[in-house]
Amino acid sequence: MIPGDHPRYRSLVTRERLAECAKKGIVTGEGLTAHGRGEAFDYMLGERTTRSALIAERTAAALLLTARCPVISVNGNTAALAANEISSLQKACGARVEVNLFHRTEKRVNMIEKLLRDSGVDVFSGNAERLLPLSHDRAWCRREGMFAADVVLVPLEDGDRCAALVEMGKTVIAIDLNPLSRTARAATLTIVDELTRALPQITHSCREISEPEKKSLISSVNNHYLLSEAIREMTERLSHALD
Amino acid sequence: MIPGDHPRYRSLVTRERLAECAKKGIVTGEGLTAHGRGEAFDYMLGERTTRSALIAERTAAALLLTARCPVISVNGNTAALAANEISSLQKACGARVEVNLFHRTEKRVNMIEKLLRDSGVDVFSGNAERLLPLSHDRAWCRREGMFAADVVLVPLEDGDRCAALVEMGKTVIAIDLNPLSRTARAATLTIVDELTRALPQITHSCREISEPEKKSLISSVNNHYLLSEAIREMTERLSHALD
Repeated sequence: MIPGDHPRYRSLVTRERLAECAKKGIVTGEGLTAHGRGEAFDYMLGERTTRSALIAERTAAALLLTARCPVISVNGNTAALAANEISSLQKACGARVEVNLFHRTEKRVNMIEKLLRDSGVDVFSGNAERLLPLSHDRAWCRREGMFAADVVLVPLEDGDRCAALVEMGKTVIAIDLNPLSRTARAATLTIVDELTRALPQITHSCREISEPEKKSLISSVNNHYLLSEAIREMTERLSHALD
Repeated sequence: MIPGDHPRYRSLVTRERLAECAKKGIVTGEGLTAHGRGEAFDYMLGERTTRSALIAERTAAALLLTARCPVISVNGNTAALAANEISSLQKACGARVEVNLFHRTEKRVNMIEKLLRDSGVDVFSGNAERLLPLSHDRAWCRREGMFAADVVLVPLEDGDRCAALVEMGKTVIAIDLNPLSRTARAATLTIVDELTRALPQITHSCREISEPEKKSLISSVNNHYLLSEAIREMTERLSHALD
């Protein structure tokens, strides 16, 4: 339906795919809007993985590989955009994959778990309980999943849940294109990169990272530096945009 | 459903309202994503009308008031977010209001026209024809409406249509939060401000602007300056965001 000569063809097609998942109920209307916010920040990054994002991605791999109980939390947008990428990352780092939704219904959880399984993900499901110190449906998770985790990867997470997980003593890795979001600031480590670029990069790093590099990256996590660098890249690009 | 203690309550409620209009078919999934992009840029502006946006809004009023045939083009997002504001602006400047959609169906056009009429807008409808030099449904407009206009206000417009209207010799006023978008660059005058802040400001200016100010504003339109100023405001805010 979108004309092939449209200069933003690729971006429009991705949007249409999300809109399609929204019709099925996998992605919420709010999820579509959140995707748009991400697009704007990615546009300012030049739609590429920056040097500092690459450091964050390698550090994420190191944290996931050395975790006692790593968990990847998946929501509707993540499943719609990157079910295959989640499957590859799970194979590379051995993390549990758990579905956690902001707008939670049993039906949505089941649809998203099915979509993930169809892409080869070993989904950790079972009974969810209200275990996180939050109002709303965001409190739900599984006792042996996110609740037990020491390291949690939360792509596209809500700011409150991210902060709650950090307060519970967990190492939280966020993937968030907005370096100013509450999620980005609250997380232990924030990857300011687009989801389908970030996940394969973490997977790749899991496969080739050495023991000394792992130790060195983990001992030098500096999220303020990573966020400052992302902002610096954006402002630099913005300020030359009209040249 | 959204918890009242959520720090982004207002923004989430607006998003929910748009999602509601999406369920009715007034707003498209792609429209929700576009709204998200706007949110990101507005966040960087500090969610306020900047000094340069105010100049653009006063200039827009001057252009609309001196036009021979001013037309306001309304799409799904604009109707969902600002039907009342469109109605007030129409009363203040006497423009024709015409519905033009990227994802065009008769049913959507009728729903949006009804929404506008219910808010007091005098909608210019009637037979649309393929009159603009564009592929896709964006080519449709009305002979005595957008096609005949000398000044067109296009809130939240698609880049191609904006460029086509300029090439047809029209004065195009865009409202676009992204100062780097093709729409923002192609327009004669770009208002980098949020829709429901921008429209009342244009209406207010229509009511109180003097003849000499009108002439002075119209003779000094400088869109490159307006876009540069918007970008300067954003980069300044971004670069101090982590202080």
